[in-house]
Amino acid sequence: MEREHNLIPEDSFWKKYLYRIIYRSDTKLGKLFDIILLSLILMSTFIIMMESVPKLDKRFHITFFVLEWIISLFFTAEYFSRIAVVKNKRHYIFSFFGIIDFLALIPFYLSLFFPITKYFLIFRMLRMLRIFRIFNLLDFMNDGYLLVRALKNSSRKIYIFLLFLIIFSVIVGSLMFMVEGGREGFETIPQAIYWAVVTVTTVGYGDVSPITPTGKFFAVVLMLAGYSIIAVPTGIVTAEMRNKRQNLEKVCDRCGNEDIDDDARYCKQCGKKLA
Amino acid sequence: MEREHNLIPEDSFWKKYLYRIIYRSDTKLGKLFDIILLSLILMSTFIIMMESVPKLDKRFHITFFVLEWIISLFFTAEYFSRIAVVKNKRHYIFSFFGIIDFLALIPFYLSLFFPITKYFLIFRMLRMLRIFRIFNLLDFMNDGYLLVRALKNSSRKIYIFLLFLIIFSVIVGSLMFMVEGGREGFETIPQAIYWAVVTVTTVGYGDVSPITPTGKFFAVVLMLAGYSIIAVPTGIVTAEMRNKRQNLEKVCDRCGNEDIDDDARYCKQCGKKLA
Amino acid sequence: MEREHNLIPEDSFWKKYLYRIIYRSDTKLGKLFDIILLSLILMSTFIIMMESVPKLDKRFHITFFVLEWIISLFFTAEYFSRIAVVKNKRHYIFSFFGIIDFLALIPFYLSLFFPITKYFLIFRMLRMLRIFRIFNLLDFMNDGYLLVRALKNSSRKIYIFLLFLIIFSVIVGSLMFMVEGGREGFETIPQAIYWAVVTVTTVGYGDVSPITPTGKFFAVVLMLAGYSIIAVPTGIVTAEMRNKRQNLEKVCDRCGNEDIDDDARYCKQCGKKLA
Amino acid sequence: MEREHNLIPEDSFWKKYLYRIIYRSDTKLGKLFDIILLSLILMSTFIIMMESVPKLDKRFHITFFVLEWIISLFFTAEYFSRIAVVKNKRHYIFSFFGIIDFLALIPFYLSLFFPITKYFLIFRMLRMLRIFRIFNLLDFMNDGYLLVRALKNSSRKIYIFLLFLIIFSVIVGSLMFMVEGGREGFETIPQAIYWAVVTVTTVGYGDVSPITPTGKFFAVVLMLAGYSIIAVPTGIVTAEMRNKRQNLEKVCDRCGNEDIDDDARYCKQCGKKLA
Repeated sequence: MEREHNLIPEDSFWKKYLYRIIYRSDTKLGKLFDIILLSLILMSTFIIMMESVPKLDKRFHITFFVLEWIISLFFTAEYFSRIAVVKNKRHYIFSFFGIIDFLALIPFYLSLFFPITKYFLIFRMLRMLRIFRIFNLLDFMNDGYLLVRALKNSSRKIYIFLLFLIIFSVIVGSLMFMVEGGREGFETIPQAIYWAVVTVTTVGYGDVSPITPTGKFFAVVLMLAGYSIIAVPTGIVTAEMRNKRQNLEKVCDRCGNEDIDDDARYCKQCGKKLA
Repeated sequence: MEREHNLIPEDSFWKKYLYRIIYRSDTKLGKLFDIILLSLILMSTFIIMMESVPKLDKRFHITFFVLEWIISLFFTAEYFSRIAVVKNKRHYIFSFFGIIDFLALIPFYLSLFFPITKYFLIFRMLRMLRIFRIFNLLDFMNDGYLLVRALKNSSRKIYIFLLFLIIFSVIVGSLMFMVEGGREGFETIPQAIYWAVVTVTTVGYGDVSPITPTGKFFAVVLMLAGYSIIAVPTGIVTAEMRNKRQNLEKVCDRCGNEDIDDDARYCKQCGKKLA
Repeated sequence: MEREHNLIPEDSFWKKYLYRIIYRSDTKLGKLFDIILLSLILMSTFIIMMESVPKLDKRFHITFFVLEWIISLFFTAEYFSRIAVVKNKRHYIFSFFGIIDFLALIPFYLSLFFPITKYFLIFRMLRMLRIFRIFNLLDFMNDGYLLVRALKNSSRKIYIFLLFLIIFSVIVGSLMFMVEGGREGFETIPQAIYWAVVTVTTVGYGDVSPITPTGKFFAVVLMLAGYSIIAVPTGIVTAEMRNKRQNLEKVCDRCGNEDIDDDARYCKQCGKKLA
Repeated sequence: MEREHNLIPEDSFWKKYLYRIIYRSDTKLGKLFDIILLSLILMSTFIIMMESVPKLDKRFHITFFVLEWIISLFFTAEYFSRIAVVKNKRHYIFSFFGIIDFLALIPFYLSLFFPITKYFLIFRMLRMLRIFRIFNLLDFMNDGYLLVRALKNSSRKIYIFLLFLIIFSVIVGSLMFMVEGGREGFETIPQAIYWAVVTVTTVGYGDVSPITPTGKFFAVVLMLAGYSIIAVPTGIVTAEMRNKRQNLEKVCDRCGNEDIDDDARYCKQCGKKLA
């Protein structure tokens, strides 16, 4: 979630004025613009969902069609305005939100030729991530960044964990394929791997479940393993999340205490005023 | 869970006496009153549950009917007494328990006109939260407050997490709708979103499960994602729960800072040596 | 898991000798005795399980019958020996393991009159908890105590959590009963509560699942709630488990550092030798 | 995951040269070799999976057959080269990767006589664990070691936890067998234990689920217990993972203590000031 605050408005008065409305929400018009935008995003998402229901689509086809055109045209206009009013245009276009804004438009125009792509419009929802800025929810925004940072910092460990998990599932699935030998749901190795993942993640649909006693025994072992393994990602993220609790750079220069909270002004160990 | 201890009794002797019985449990009568109340709440909950079972309702209809009237009249009398004996009546009425006490009555009288509302009486169970006070379970009460506080403190992060999760589920559901293309359980986008939530939360009913190999592959990816994501709320609450390690009784007597770690010897806000 | 080390042997030489064999495992005979005991427990558990399988019971009925008699007689003799060789007999009888040893016998004799009680013999498995002592697995034993202690210390918070969870499930179940109005699996409130618990704990059998769109919407809300709620018990136990990591009583008397590991001999902050 | 860096190459020039290609990836050829190896492992895994699908096997039988021979011969040659170029041959053969390399070959030659063993070739995937070395992903490697170490350190507690869990499941399963008395899915005790594990681990296939009200009540109790119990492994691993905050590179140069916290300024074992 890249911040947009390093975008600089164009010099012309009108572009500066528009910039403030579009990118900021510290004016009345800016706030109104944001609320309209949010409503249109929600409405668009809702329409796409409803269009997929044959009964509703049949009844409101024209309404949906017209609304979608209006919203999409508005988004198109907005996208080009966003480009027009910033000086460092490339910066916006390749920013996190710039790409999302673009992706929110493309499927509509593509769907004129390839109808199925219409449903990709659901990606418009991602624009909602701007929601925090809209309501000036600074605390929320900070918490959001903290969450994203914690995930980013632990992403490497999570990748390794997932690699282990995948290798584990493939092996378990193959063993199970030999055990249940082509019984329903275990006809092929990929099928058996599907079952292994469903089991080890404790999802447990039950569309595939072991039938032979040996198979059930293996399943029990796998479930107990999965139950213990689930602790690993949790441990990773929890350990990471602790990081954000204290100021990692501050040290008390009298007693050397490094366990200093972000909001501390005095060392809690020796009472020295912190710089 | 607002504390009720800031309610002040009326001046009259009888009202003071009743106040002690109703709101406190440090007298024999007060304890008796509380135990009767608790029994009635449990009995009422039990009756409502049993009434929903046709066989039992048929057999004990009259018993249930009579008991419900008695309990509800008792609760009504109790509610008005509670109002009568406190000085700051508005304070009670709009307190957490005041609202619950009210909600525990309304459905009964409404059900005389709209029978279906009867089942809302189940909200009476919330009155059980007073249970800690009844048995003078101070330690339990403190632990309860700590839990509630930890959840409250991390609620903002949990909201953000849920927002991400919802956006994620909507997008995954829509993609799956395109993949499984109208197959059973994936007929519409809302259906597919339902499936996505069932999967990502590892509930996995199995009433809807992917059928095509591509669908199964997507499901596997989603499950692995869900398995990693589950670490996030856990990490949030765990990190928050560590906060409670603070000494809840220590306060800095110079600056009034209450956020004091268990191991602190000096106030981190003003540098005063702590007693 | 109460320790048995505060049991005192009887004075007579033979009883002292037997005491050492039965209660200790520091002699060859003592070790042998323990291994025989463990084997019999496992064998007994295995027989009870096998007896429940009609096909196997039919075939090996006599073998099972005879073995069960032998094992039970051995356990009976052992139980009375255990009583005989200790001085503080009452102490043993009402100790954790004393009660389990008793419970491991009763069902057998009861089953002579009430056959169904036979299956309670499965409680014999609990005797396996002595396993750690048998193999002199001191480290395992300590870790076991730590786990038990962490659970005990956080039990109060877990009870509160479960109370909340139960109230929550009852209310959600009742609401769902109104929503799904007597549809399959939601015919009665207790049924609906069963569904709510299955869902909120993310077990998700799928024997009952919402059918109406409104029901599905409620289910989605419940699942997301359950997904967040699961963090609470984890947070509780994790926070508790951290306790055991450091010596909570040691403080460095030069710099006041209280973050001292159990195995530390010098303060890691100022280098002072710890008392 | 044992490190391979303590293997010493043979003295001869050619063997030293080959050693560098095979065991290292700091030369162009070495990197190429590793990438070919990785591709062959992936391809081999893929072929085994595809062979289990009758439709694909029928169509590409010869292709699969030939490819498998080529890959297996390559792996065989590689295995003997690995032995040939190191001085301490036994060291390699019994190292973690040495054993895996061997296991990756055996099933192929066995399958010439016992076709079913072919599927054990899936263990070749374990060779992928070398992946981190291949791409010189040092950070990933370190994180991987940390994860493995955290699991190893907490393994003892997890074993105890699993023992408790198994005893618990066996007892619960037996009780349920008595309650549901031979109903579908609860015909035998082992069946009922299978159900208990499926439930307590929150997998919840739904292939077996309680039918009687009493059974459902027991199931609810079990689920709530499982929901609380899941916190235990998480707590264990999380507590262990905190350990990794230690500085892995610091060593006390006086006493050799390697267990040094990130924030330590003095060795906690000998009091020496750390550099």
